[in-house]
Amino acid sequence: MHIHIQLLPFPPAPNLVSDRIVAVIDILRATSVMVQAISQGASEIIPVETVEKAFQLAKTFPPNTTLLGGERESRKIEGFDLGNSPREYQGEKVRGKRLILTTTNGTKAFHAVSSGQKVLVGSFLNITAVAERCFELNQDLFIYLSGDEGNFSLEDTVCGGMLIDRIIKKGGKSILLTDASRSAHILFQKFEADIVESFHLSQHGKNLVDRGFEEDLPYCAQVDMTNLVPVFKEGVIK
Amino acid sequence: MHIHIQLLPFPPAPNLVSDRIVAVIDILRATSVMVQAISQGASEIIPVETVEKAFQLAKTFPPNTTLLGGERESRKIEGFDLGNSPREYQGEKVRGKRLILTTTNGTKAFHAVSSGQKVLVGSFLNITAVAERCFELNQDLFIYLSGDEGNFSLEDTVCGGMLIDRIIKKGGKSILLTDASRSAHILFQKFEADIVESFHLSQHGKNLVDRGFEEDLPYCAQVDMTNLVPVFKEGVIK
Repeated sequence: MHIHIQLLPFPPAPNLVSDRIVAVIDILRATSVMVQAISQGASEIIPVETVEKAFQLAKTFPPNTTLLGGERESRKIEGFDLGNSPREYQGEKVRGKRLILTTTNGTKAFHAVSSGQKVLVGSFLNITAVAERCFELNQDLFIYLSGDEGNFSLEDTVCGGMLIDRIIKKGGKSILLTDASRSAHILFQKFEADIVESFHLSQHGKNLVDRGFEEDLPYCAQVDMTNLVPVFKEGVIK
Repeated sequence: MHIHIQLLPFPPAPNLVSDRIVAVIDILRATSVMVQAISQGASEIIPVETVEKAFQLAKTFPPNTTLLGGERESRKIEGFDLGNSPREYQGEKVRGKRLILTTTNGTKAFHAVSSGQKVLVGSFLNITAVAERCFELNQDLFIYLSGDEGNFSLEDTVCGGMLIDRIIKKGGKSILLTDASRSAHILFQKFEADIVESFHLSQHGKNLVDRGFEEDLPYCAQVDMTNLVPVFKEGVIK
């Protein structure tokens, strides 16, 4: 198995992903929210790119079936039900509900790699399950990091490196790394003993602390809270 | 001083570099050749993007003043005087000569960042001198890695990380890092004790070994062979 990780968030050439498994990672906080919501019983998640589109789409579903979630500049959007803290997505609030989600980096990412053969939602919360799924599927893997407003993101890379680490531990020498995936693995090893430290060093982590979301950092750093692996298909995550 | 490193080789927005010092790095092997050639007394280097352009330009200079150097698929180009091994650029062969150089990754890089306020040629061969020059100039720094045919390159990133390390050791807490420059610094620390190991792990390093250029790896990993810092200005490196 060949593992590549794209370190910057631009749409890859379709041929780079069309015959590969894609794992999308946006640790702070979109994919952490997605995994949390599905693990708490949300029926499906529809990632959309704009606030307008979220409101329009919500109107097409029956009342009380759908939640609007997401952020702009880290904060809950006016008129939305939920923000972008995974801590908010708990119990009865989300069970059985459809979630329409729009965030700055994460929701764009899914549309950038929609031509991938299978598109998985990755986070620390379900990292071992994602690694196991990749290993079972036994195809080349393309890890897509959604980054920080177009820039490289340390925390996404550390999570990608942990996914690589988990797969190497299962596959040994049959796993082939590119320069980028090898580097992500090294960055993970640097922060293995303290994942939250990498969040505090990252620009996006610092912004979240400044905006009052410090508690989200240890929450998003929890490893293997669930063994669910949501899949993005035809615009919907289940 | 703020240090950013661009981990993938695409032309940066001009406003990202126009008020910054730019250091261009292409360890295997263009910037290593450039630093070597200047240290051996070459009068100037003109990086050009195509073989045709190199031949045309050479004709405009008096006989015996100009050398053609460079590679395609790592190998010397037919009709050229020199390839792309820094070991070739020694003594009388280059002293006082103008070098027209065309390589796969490195020569493009200079044109991508030509709007930089000052564009320095960086390599392990002159790394401390580059760090000192950056520190004296005391402006924000943009490190541009020329990569491996459009991809992220481990060896260029490790060299960028060493440049960052040298500057941090002079500047301490006044040096501000982005997620990318922090990650490059960590990757350098991983390979600090054995720079050549990073070359052997990198795709480009492996290609050079396969093509018979293994001796270039330890040559390009020599730290501080010279204190010269060539500068790219108006299309010419001096």
